[in-house]
Amino acid sequence: MSMNSFGHLFRVTTWGESHGPALGATVDGCPPGVAIDEAMIQHWLDKRKPGQNKFTTQRREPDQVKILSGVFEGQTTGTPVQLMIENTDQRSKDYGDIMDKFRPGHADITYWQKYGIRDYRGGGRSSARETASRVAAGGLAREAIKQIAPNVQISGYMTQIGPHKIDRAKFDWSQIEQNPFWTPDASAAEDWAAYLDDLRKSGNSVGAVVEVVARGVPAGIGAPVYAKLDTDLAASMMSINAVKGVEIGEGMAAAELTGEANADEIFMGQNGPQYSSNHSGGILGGISTGQDIVVRFAVKPTSSILTTRKTITKSGEETEIITKGRHDPCVGIRAVPVGEAMMACVILDHLLLHRGQIGENRGRIG
Amino acid sequence: MSMNSFGHLFRVTTWGESHGPALGATVDGCPPGVAIDEAMIQHWLDKRKPGQNKFTTQRREPDQVKILSGVFEGQTTGTPVQLMIENTDQRSKDYGDIMDKFRPGHADITYWQKYGIRDYRGGGRSSARETASRVAAGGLAREAIKQIAPNVQISGYMTQIGPHKIDRAKFDWSQIEQNPFWTPDASAAEDWAAYLDDLRKSGNSVGAVVEVVARGVPAGIGAPVYAKLDTDLAASMMSINAVKGVEIGEGMAAAELTGEANADEIFMGQNGPQYSSNHSGGILGGISTGQDIVVRFAVKPTSSILTTRKTITKSGEETEIITKGRHDPCVGIRAVPVGEAMMACVILDHLLLHRGQIGENRGRIG
Amino acid sequence: MSMNSFGHLFRVTTWGESHGPALGATVDGCPPGVAIDEAMIQHWLDKRKPGQNKFTTQRREPDQVKILSGVFEGQTTGTPVQLMIENTDQRSKDYGDIMDKFRPGHADITYWQKYGIRDYRGGGRSSARETASRVAAGGLAREAIKQIAPNVQISGYMTQIGPHKIDRAKFDWSQIEQNPFWTPDASAAEDWAAYLDDLRKSGNSVGAVVEVVARGVPAGIGAPVYAKLDTDLAASMMSINAVKGVEIGEGMAAAELTGEANADEIFMGQNGPQYSSNHSGGILGGISTGQDIVVRFAVKPTSSILTTRKTITKSGEETEIITKGRHDPCVGIRAVPVGEAMMACVILDHLLLHRGQIGENRGRIG
Amino acid sequence: MSMNSFGHLFRVTTWGESHGPALGATVDGCPPGVAIDEAMIQHWLDKRKPGQNKFTTQRREPDQVKILSGVFEGQTTGTPVQLMIENTDQRSKDYGDIMDKFRPGHADITYWQKYGIRDYRGGGRSSARETASRVAAGGLAREAIKQIAPNVQISGYMTQIGPHKIDRAKFDWSQIEQNPFWTPDASAAEDWAAYLDDLRKSGNSVGAVVEVVARGVPAGIGAPVYAKLDTDLAASMMSINAVKGVEIGEGMAAAELTGEANADEIFMGQNGPQYSSNHSGGILGGISTGQDIVVRFAVKPTSSILTTRKTITKSGEETEIITKGRHDPCVGIRAVPVGEAMMACVILDHLLLHRGQIGENRGRIG
Repeated sequence: MSMNSFGHLFRVTTWGESHGPALGATVDGCPPGVAIDEAMIQHWLDKRKPGQNKFTTQRREPDQVKILSGVFEGQTTGTPVQLMIENTDQRSKDYGDIMDKFRPGHADITYWQKYGIRDYRGGGRSSARETASRVAAGGLAREAIKQIAPNVQISGYMTQIGPHKIDRAKFDWSQIEQNPFWTPDASAAEDWAAYLDDLRKSGNSVGAVVEVVARGVPAGIGAPVYAKLDTDLAASMMSINAVKGVEIGEGMAAAELTGEANADEIFMGQNGPQYSSNHSGGILGGISTGQDIVVRFAVKPTSSILTTRKTITKSGEETEIITKGRHDPCVGIRAVPVGEAMMACVILDHLLLHRGQIGENRGRIG
Repeated sequence: MSMNSFGHLFRVTTWGESHGPALGATVDGCPPGVAIDEAMIQHWLDKRKPGQNKFTTQRREPDQVKILSGVFEGQTTGTPVQLMIENTDQRSKDYGDIMDKFRPGHADITYWQKYGIRDYRGGGRSSARETASRVAAGGLAREAIKQIAPNVQISGYMTQIGPHKIDRAKFDWSQIEQNPFWTPDASAAEDWAAYLDDLRKSGNSVGAVVEVVARGVPAGIGAPVYAKLDTDLAASMMSINAVKGVEIGEGMAAAELTGEANADEIFMGQNGPQYSSNHSGGILGGISTGQDIVVRFAVKPTSSILTTRKTITKSGEETEIITKGRHDPCVGIRAVPVGEAMMACVILDHLLLHRGQIGENRGRIG
Repeated sequence: MSMNSFGHLFRVTTWGESHGPALGATVDGCPPGVAIDEAMIQHWLDKRKPGQNKFTTQRREPDQVKILSGVFEGQTTGTPVQLMIENTDQRSKDYGDIMDKFRPGHADITYWQKYGIRDYRGGGRSSARETASRVAAGGLAREAIKQIAPNVQISGYMTQIGPHKIDRAKFDWSQIEQNPFWTPDASAAEDWAAYLDDLRKSGNSVGAVVEVVARGVPAGIGAPVYAKLDTDLAASMMSINAVKGVEIGEGMAAAELTGEANADEIFMGQNGPQYSSNHSGGILGGISTGQDIVVRFAVKPTSSILTTRKTITKSGEETEIITKGRHDPCVGIRAVPVGEAMMACVILDHLLLHRGQIGENRGRIG
Repeated sequence: MSMNSFGHLFRVTTWGESHGPALGATVDGCPPGVAIDEAMIQHWLDKRKPGQNKFTTQRREPDQVKILSGVFEGQTTGTPVQLMIENTDQRSKDYGDIMDKFRPGHADITYWQKYGIRDYRGGGRSSARETASRVAAGGLAREAIKQIAPNVQISGYMTQIGPHKIDRAKFDWSQIEQNPFWTPDASAAEDWAAYLDDLRKSGNSVGAVVEVVARGVPAGIGAPVYAKLDTDLAASMMSINAVKGVEIGEGMAAAELTGEANADEIFMGQNGPQYSSNHSGGILGGISTGQDIVVRFAVKPTSSILTTRKTITKSGEETEIITKGRHDPCVGIRAVPVGEAMMACVILDHLLLHRGQIGENRGRIG
């Protein structure tokens, strides 16, 4: 019941602070024989890496992963895999002035109240830098999934920045890699660039919505109550820094539907059941239907902005603060690969859990 | 890592099917010396019980809880508490015709695909009846919380049915117990009654939004990553049957805000920090701020409706189905006490977890 | 991390006290499709049941198990199985005089010190009656094992009572069911009967050693550090009431051996590796070799004896106590089916865990 | 339920192989505010370090620990502590000839059978080098214990090498640090030196018994069934490489005692209950009595010996092997600090778990 761990069988424990020597992920329960090297994991870290375009923080951190254990001659051995990322561009001087002031919207105050000690350089443990560890673990999970369910494809993308949503009619999978927002709507990407540029210049920030889809997941993974696939997905996405809401399929909009409108009718396809629609987001009773698994989450605006905000100090004095430093105007952008990583970890974990309890899918239809 | 368990230290395992002999909750880790009896738990079960008014299912189940262990002479002993509810009004004949047909929107098909066997009488394990076990556990959690953090108050209520939302300006805590929807907006309650009556008569159903608030929770509970208070709340709410979305504080709407608008500025009050607003829902970095903890979740419309829907059989033949039986036109109503119970369990669990790791709150301000 | 649970995937939570309404086991993670009914579990409970001969306590408890969930039409459904045993012959008057006095060797004093409250009727939660729940869970585990590894055979037997050990030269599997001690040495059984009869008449008690062997376990189950097969076996046996020592293979005697004497040399047999000996008890590096898994544990003498012993009361006064009541002169006898049950649960759990992480055995030899 | 983790609240995950870049321990759940630095942990690693005298392996590994996270300005922050030890003296050439041959008594064959891949350089994950990670974690646990229960003292020592046991009459705590065997019997130390010298020269090895005692542990820690203090101690000791038996208090000898002889009578001392003896090893019903916690474990002889032994290859051919290299004639010696470390981790974990569930000790006597 480690507080910093997630997963049942594929179990990831992340460790490290934004300004300590290193951070990483201790991954237990990975199947043996998964072909992996540092470059394959680095690929996903590079996607999350800061400083890639003007819409993300200008901190430059190579975020170079090292595999310290659990891999031998290019394959996992089935023993714990340690994925370490050393911190290099720490510039702790940027943070010196917040040693005693609590930044509104950050976890400075709650960490202090809980622990009575905090690494005030950056967010310490509460920094979004922690998500690099998850992306590394997710890179490993993706390769392990290939071994067990090779048809699974996991893709994340933005569907909204501030009030601006994509037009679902313009959804084009091939566009996702073509713009800095990882959005499938090319025209939205253009509009968003202008919008975000203004926001960045004014020192403000904005929230976003990220959607992550897993295609090709076999029917039958997940289990009742606390191994429900949606339970674990909700937890994994909500555990990402700045996330305030998580939706499966229709999500919050399900409240507005009638039973008639919400029904996903079932037909018989050539390769098993097919559905008239996917309001359920590919999950019924916590177990996958074989349809696309669809998760969506909202990321709040970066709390580090250039507007003066009222706050207090450790000694309880009222004061003001401007959070300088190099920050993302929309952290939602860099949350895309993080959401993908969490999806990969959850899907792999449930594939293993299902195999453990059941063996192979048992109930055949037709 | 029991699949049917939740909680770190206050750990609840639910068991049982809708039409078996009984169901219940095995509760481990409850503090000793908590004054409890069956009536105190029954109080909360009665709130959830079906058949109380025309807006909930007309099944009549007394849902009478029995304490089988862990309580001696009116107090918990610190050993596992077994809370059992016997099933009485099973009428399994209602379900005979769905032995081979999968009801759209229900977990019939996924349970079959996963396990290759399912209790087809009602939803079996996937029935919302399972939530009675959670309400029982939540009743115990409420009493244990009184011992540790006596100022905590947990209240759930509906804020939306179908497209109809409450008017936040009319929010009145005292109204919640006065109407069948547990809504704090008395005029909404009237409108909803008429709306739902029509819907019920037409054999249709509708979704809803439930909000659960915990007031008086001390600052400092929760912990990074997978013991984040919001992570555990998201999981606990998403694990409730029919829930499709979970929000903390601003929730999905956080996507639309700018950093300026979203900032909860901090001031110094007489009893510690105070905030200009509560966009965060009382949680920063996964740890409580001392403000109200605010969680919201959307419940999809009941899938059992009187409209014919297309589906398939176990042998893969296409067919149609009408789900007769006695069902709720809006399961959201009965989800209110369930949401409260999950909040109670999560809050207690984190109070214990904090006490275990830290002892008492460490970081004082001022 | 429930305190009253064990197992990774096949997870058993026991609950209940000796003199409450009932006790039982909540079993999560059982594979679906396992043929089971109450009689199959009752078979094992009857083996443990008190009052069968003059060497076990004369309490009469039918120990009748009821399956309350997780089984449908004679097969497990893959959801939690609740196994309940109602307490019938409680005679709490036997225990009235120990309400305030702590019985030496019993957990009365530590439960009081820990919890500040205890069910003083019998041992409450600390009573060996708790082991009935384990035997029930073990009965289910045995049936599930048949599905996955049908060659596994689990047998427990006594090898020592007080100073009297069996003669290994006379070991005969077929004798085990033929005597009240479940010992494979028929002549030892005769000697022990006389010895124990004397002891019983004098109101004294004695310890014992029980050995449990699992034959036919495939090579490769177990995993490093805390899922080592021997780690889990040691924990599971030590968790049985009154157990003070656990050995794998050579056990404590390994200390006396030289490396030359201890080496199990490896040869190639028709169906895989074979070994010249089994000093290791069938486990190397925490993983099964395919040889017999051999576990041994020592049970201390029953603490309830008819000799006056000095003790104190709750208020700290010194006093004396004689523990009347109906007790076993050698609880080791009834520990045999309990040890078997724990072995069955551990073996099943590791079969599932292995299947989850690895799929099938991967490394072939030859 | 990570396979490579142990502990409930103070949770340690070890990772790494003997010949990879590094190994270490990821420690979650450590209380904040514990004063710690690398030197304090190094102290215990140095005690375990090879090459200190002629009775331990002549490999030279500095075993230098680095703290990578969770410590800020000399104190723990309450977030995960990463303790890393880089491997330096790897000399993998020593192991080249065992790439395809399985060493008898080692886990080479079972790792291969389980995973289908193994790091054949040294034992890889199954090497006793893994225990360095535990010693590091134990060093941290010791400092955390000081914060919560400052009177706790943990000491390990050898009581037997091969057939040679200490004389309990000569037990002298002050001798433990004075000889290379950490034994409290000075005259035994002399005899053992001669005995082991002969053994080492002949290329043979021998087993040993190690006893670990925790003094000053408050009454009341531990909990039923799977959080029993003795359950967790048995698991933690049995999980150490080469351990084949674990005893609490009387241990296996409890089998030979009568109830009269085994009774620890209770008296009232000035500071609470006192006992006439400690057959129980300080634990009743899984909960500490306040007496010394006494654990003993047997370590088998090193399997790497200079005698030719028969074995097979990966392809199933029969062959012979001599395990050259630099090995310990008695690995029991270096198991002493490992046993102490495990005791420290278990005691801390249970102190936290008790504080979490109970708060403070509840039941007062007198």
